[in-house]
Amino acid sequence: MASASPAPPRVSRRRRAAPPPKTRFDRRLAKILTHATDVFYEKGYEGASMRDLSRASGMSLAGMYYYFESKEKLLYLIQKHTFTTIVERLRERLKDVTDPEQRIRVFILNHLEYFLANQKAMKVLSHEDDVLKNSFGTEIAAIKREYYRICMDLLDNLKRAKGLEFSSRIAVLSLFGMMNWIYTWYHPRVDADAGEMAEQMANIFLQGVCASGKAPKKRSAN
Amino acid sequence: MASASPAPPRVSRRRRAAPPPKTRFDRRLAKILTHATDVFYEKGYEGASMRDLSRASGMSLAGMYYYFESKEKLLYLIQKHTFTTIVERLRERLKDVTDPEQRIRVFILNHLEYFLANQKAMKVLSHEDDVLKNSFGTEIAAIKREYYRICMDLLDNLKRAKGLEFSSRIAVLSLFGMMNWIYTWYHPRVDADAGEMAEQMANIFLQGVCASGKAPKKRSAN
Repeated sequence: MASASPAPPRVSRRRRAAPPPKTRFDRRLAKILTHATDVFYEKGYEGASMRDLSRASGMSLAGMYYYFESKEKLLYLIQKHTFTTIVERLRERLKDVTDPEQRIRVFILNHLEYFLANQKAMKVLSHEDDVLKNSFGTEIAAIKREYYRICMDLLDNLKRAKGLEFSSRIAVLSLFGMMNWIYTWYHPRVDADAGEMAEQMANIFLQGVCASGKAPKKRSAN
Repeated sequence: MASASPAPPRVSRRRRAAPPPKTRFDRRLAKILTHATDVFYEKGYEGASMRDLSRASGMSLAGMYYYFESKEKLLYLIQKHTFTTIVERLRERLKDVTDPEQRIRVFILNHLEYFLANQKAMKVLSHEDDVLKNSFGTEIAAIKREYYRICMDLLDNLKRAKGLEFSSRIAVLSLFGMMNWIYTWYHPRVDADAGEMAEQMANIFLQGVCASGKAPKKRSAN
């Protein structure tokens, strides 16, 4: 694929993790969120009780209520932790990359790398997408909107750079679909790693939008 | 996009529904399945009780147990009805179409048309994908495998016809991702109808796999 910038660098696959939690409390919290993710993964949000969550995390039921108030709060914390981490890592990785296509490749790799390392979180986030209400829901919706917005901007940059025309909404949401659906079928033993996966999906997606957006012609039957 | 066959016909958007259920019992069953889909959609499979299901369908709880035995059986019937209908309609539609690209377009349109008309079923099927065990699970898995296999064959035909090389597994599952993710974002008032949606997704997907599969070259950084 021809690229606007000379010899764009291969997208680095080095994991640039967010700085690890610092205090003992942070580490404990991260662990409890992992256990809670497991429970929501197994039982679904509706099917999980605070008792299940306390049992899985090894915390007393009273302690669970004291620190987390409700399972809704736990789901909120899981979602917040996930999206904040993904957005932080993405911003860090995008710093050094200017080529519009490469930036989209970075986006795809960052997303797949996180979710293939956290497949249970991916299922929980997909399934319990619409559970949170009120201020919890509003806050998570804002982070997700920011994330969606970043992807939209990356795509708009590509469109400008290459003079393409297509529906950004359908394209972005098709891309999220390709990436997020992975939790239903990915098997580490059969399938390639996140880097290879990201490359193949990026190839389909980028060539797809580049080719189908190229001719600003009248809609044709084909 | 150049096509192998001369002037391939525009994919017909006429709805060719499966023959409607014939007996009074069939109609009653179809209605109960619709109500049950609503309940699973609202509460999730784990969160739904037979009592909820009986209330929604206006059938007594005793009748519910008598005719359907368990909520597992209901979920099984919903899944079976959905996949059987989709596969039947697809086979019917594919009969008249020979061009490999057009056949994939027919597949995409058939899938989106069904699921945009039955968005709740789409969510329920996605979320409760792994709930069914034993013979229920085995039977549904077989129908789904058949459906997946059809898509795989369509893609393999395209690869042969155009001399393309790419991973059919990643391509097919990316396509399912693009299409199925729709239930999380589709708004009939904002978004185009199934026909337009299918056309745009087919453009991205087909041009993507055609372009990225064209050069049987060594993997490059871009």
